[in-house]
Amino acid sequence: MNVSRFSRGALFLLAGLSVMPAWSAELEAPAVDPAVLAKIRDAALSSDWAWQRLADLTDKIGPRLSGSPQAEAAVTQVSAALEAAGFKVTLQPAKVPHWLRGEEQAELVDYPGRPEGLTQHLHLTTLGGSVATPKKGLTAQVLVVHSFDDLKAHAAEARGRIVLFDYAFNQDLANNGQAMSAYSEAVAYRVQGASAAAKLGAVASLIRSVGGADFRLPHTGVMRYEDGVPKIPAAALSAEDAMWVARLAAQGPVNLHLTLTPQTLPDADSHNVLADLPGRDKPDEVVLVSGHLDSWDLAQGAIDDGAGVTAAMGAVQVLKSLGLQPRRTIRVVAWMNEENGSGGSKAYFAANKDHIAQQIGVIESDSGAGQPLGIVASVTKDSEDRLKPVTAALQPIGATAIDRRDGEVGADIGPLQEAGVPGFAPLVDTREYFWYHHTAADTLDKVKPENLRRQVAVMAVLAYYLAEMPEPLARMPAKAE
Amino acid sequence: MNVSRFSRGALFLLAGLSVMPAWSAELEAPAVDPAVLAKIRDAALSSDWAWQRLADLTDKIGPRLSGSPQAEAAVTQVSAALEAAGFKVTLQPAKVPHWLRGEEQAELVDYPGRPEGLTQHLHLTTLGGSVATPKKGLTAQVLVVHSFDDLKAHAAEARGRIVLFDYAFNQDLANNGQAMSAYSEAVAYRVQGASAAAKLGAVASLIRSVGGADFRLPHTGVMRYEDGVPKIPAAALSAEDAMWVARLAAQGPVNLHLTLTPQTLPDADSHNVLADLPGRDKPDEVVLVSGHLDSWDLAQGAIDDGAGVTAAMGAVQVLKSLGLQPRRTIRVVAWMNEENGSGGSKAYFAANKDHIAQQIGVIESDSGAGQPLGIVASVTKDSEDRLKPVTAALQPIGATAIDRRDGEVGADIGPLQEAGVPGFAPLVDTREYFWYHHTAADTLDKVKPENLRRQVAVMAVLAYYLAEMPEPLARMPAKAE
Repeated sequence: MNVSRFSRGALFLLAGLSVMPAWSAELEAPAVDPAVLAKIRDAALSSDWAWQRLADLTDKIGPRLSGSPQAEAAVTQVSAALEAAGFKVTLQPAKVPHWLRGEEQAELVDYPGRPEGLTQHLHLTTLGGSVATPKKGLTAQVLVVHSFDDLKAHAAEARGRIVLFDYAFNQDLANNGQAMSAYSEAVAYRVQGASAAAKLGAVASLIRSVGGADFRLPHTGVMRYEDGVPKIPAAALSAEDAMWVARLAAQGPVNLHLTLTPQTLPDADSHNVLADLPGRDKPDEVVLVSGHLDSWDLAQGAIDDGAGVTAAMGAVQVLKSLGLQPRRTIRVVAWMNEENGSGGSKAYFAANKDHIAQQIGVIESDSGAGQPLGIVASVTKDSEDRLKPVTAALQPIGATAIDRRDGEVGADIGPLQEAGVPGFAPLVDTREYFWYHHTAADTLDKVKPENLRRQVAVMAVLAYYLAEMPEPLARMPAKAE
Repeated sequence: MNVSRFSRGALFLLAGLSVMPAWSAELEAPAVDPAVLAKIRDAALSSDWAWQRLADLTDKIGPRLSGSPQAEAAVTQVSAALEAAGFKVTLQPAKVPHWLRGEEQAELVDYPGRPEGLTQHLHLTTLGGSVATPKKGLTAQVLVVHSFDDLKAHAAEARGRIVLFDYAFNQDLANNGQAMSAYSEAVAYRVQGASAAAKLGAVASLIRSVGGADFRLPHTGVMRYEDGVPKIPAAALSAEDAMWVARLAAQGPVNLHLTLTPQTLPDADSHNVLADLPGRDKPDEVVLVSGHLDSWDLAQGAIDDGAGVTAAMGAVQVLKSLGLQPRRTIRVVAWMNEENGSGGSKAYFAANKDHIAQQIGVIESDSGAGQPLGIVASVTKDSEDRLKPVTAALQPIGATAIDRRDGEVGADIGPLQEAGVPGFAPLVDTREYFWYHHTAADTLDKVKPENLRRQVAVMAVLAYYLAEMPEPLARMPAKAE
């Protein structure tokens, strides 16, 4: 299904013949001048423009969940910043969910060895999209399971219970560079746990927080209800609290009083923020560089995804500040609603799906602000070598790896990738990402300014290169709907 | 001021002549049989009795601040556990403060670059002993200072302000084995900050949390008011929040709305829990082995000081289970009220001050449950060699260091030490202690069972040795009142 080396070569010749007056020179000289890439890298490494944007976004607006006044303030703030940097900004309308966290309380009201009259307070956070308990809460015995299989094995005991999925995030995996795999494994319980439990008659669903550090931090995140299954309230305990409940439940019945009062309001109107650095030769062909502007509501959203969105903004700003205008348009997109609905992603795809061939490459940074180690590229095997000038330019900052994959490398760019557009992300050190992800501790101090500058360098060099290459990279095979 | 080698030798001879029938044998053979010390060590390392006590204390009672029903439940629980292990338990009455945390909220209501209508929620915790703000809170501009000297330099700006002492705990120092020094430096702001600020007309006092990890955890702890100085409310921001406020304040005026509603109730009646392993020859001479039973109210108090108090209990339990009865009495004490008033410590001292010479050595564990590295000993220089059989017995677990100091090695045993009693503590790895200290994350999972067993071994071997030595260690010079 991959485009073969032969056909890619043929395309290159056709492209050169049809649109490039100096095609023979293109064949002899490097396709993109390494000195220009080096200049971009160095300019990114010496600029604190992106850092200032991140500080403004996190310190002055903070949490910006879709539908909130803070999310709208973020749209206004980054639009103003891009306009001040000389860009014409477009706001692309997007419908987004509007979910509001309410009260969240859990008390152990009975357990083996409980001294008369004492209860215990648990640390938890409601999962995004959850329905509420009754206003005064609900009380039920806890059924602790460690996996979906374990739930099946105890299916007969689930009716009327609060099911706790005590599944531990695999930090060892994360420590070995596989943080996203560890996340995928654990997040299944966050997303699907409530419906799995509800099918068996459970009255509420709890998970052990999806994350790898133990500082009594509950991690929020989106959950979803299956159609046709009763909706039950869902929350995440901190790792400590989940282990605690599991220890007590191993000794006898544990009863928990749970009060969650979130509200789901009507969908809200919001926007993606777009700004173009217009291409000099092929302005209709677009390389997209992006991060998401919305965040969860517990903290500043500095690593998720303030760093990503401001690095993307920094990438176009650094190119503009150098007066560079590559062959194709580079478009920065600050996505709205990555966290709980992908409203912004859907809006962009709907607006572009009829001329998807003009989307040449799509980059999204959404794995935090760890040290960049290279690039992730969902491209054909043959394209890998063509990316080497990018990592060669990034060699002085150690971002030399090309991690070629076949699949989604960013949630917002997923639909474009599925339509065949090559997809990219900075490859960053994620060992500590899930310590903070979706917690109250996702704050500006978690981002090292030098790592943000490096990430700007990675995205600016990569975006410029993709926009400047004489012929674009091969498309990926489109996925069936 | 030290007792000289000569006089110690003379005392030894006198002691031998006066009370020991086999004194000449004592001089030839080791004073305490190394095989017995090894047997104690091995029994401690193979027992989970202390771990079970710690699990019961933390999981089933949890926070146990002096004066609370939980603290009383803890007295009952550990008394029952010691009785079940065959000890006769004595409850020693102690008056303790009764301070109750209330609501605690802080909002940034104005700051440079604030989008219209937005406020920001800060993470904080009231300091123990603090007075309340008005019920609806108070609003004032923040004055950020980094030290007491810095406050002096800005004295003219403090009136009517909320002073924030943004002093960072020195984790580098802690990482180099000097955690207690780092603590002492930072804790001055927690204890004395409010009065220092109030003297200049400030309306409230905030500190950056005393602790070395950054997971948005506020650290509580006791504060004190100077006589004759207005009492103003005092709280600790998480490190992240303190840094955030400092960043904003560097850009312009920051206004904060602060609501703290703690209450100080009348002093309560509580107890130290005491149990003796009576000495076979000199039952009136006592070696004390201890930890404190009370904890702060934000978490289970597993490392502070559940581990210490249950290790002390485990030490006497292991000796009793081996049927050992040393020359002198070994007394386990579970102290009440170490955290905010030392009511238990004062009660014990008052009860024993008239026959202080019978207190032969006092051990307290209150530095967490890190891996034991040896013993801390506040003893005369000449006594150091006499402790070598203890560390020799502990060599297989790596607890070989003798860290000789001159000064308090435990808050509860401080008054006894000042009266000249040699003082001891397990020397433990404290690099991570102040990550969790006085926070919501001080939970059972922070204690490794093997480290607790090792700590039981250290305390049991040391206590037995001190109680079995033919002559006690030399007294330390008593400090003037």
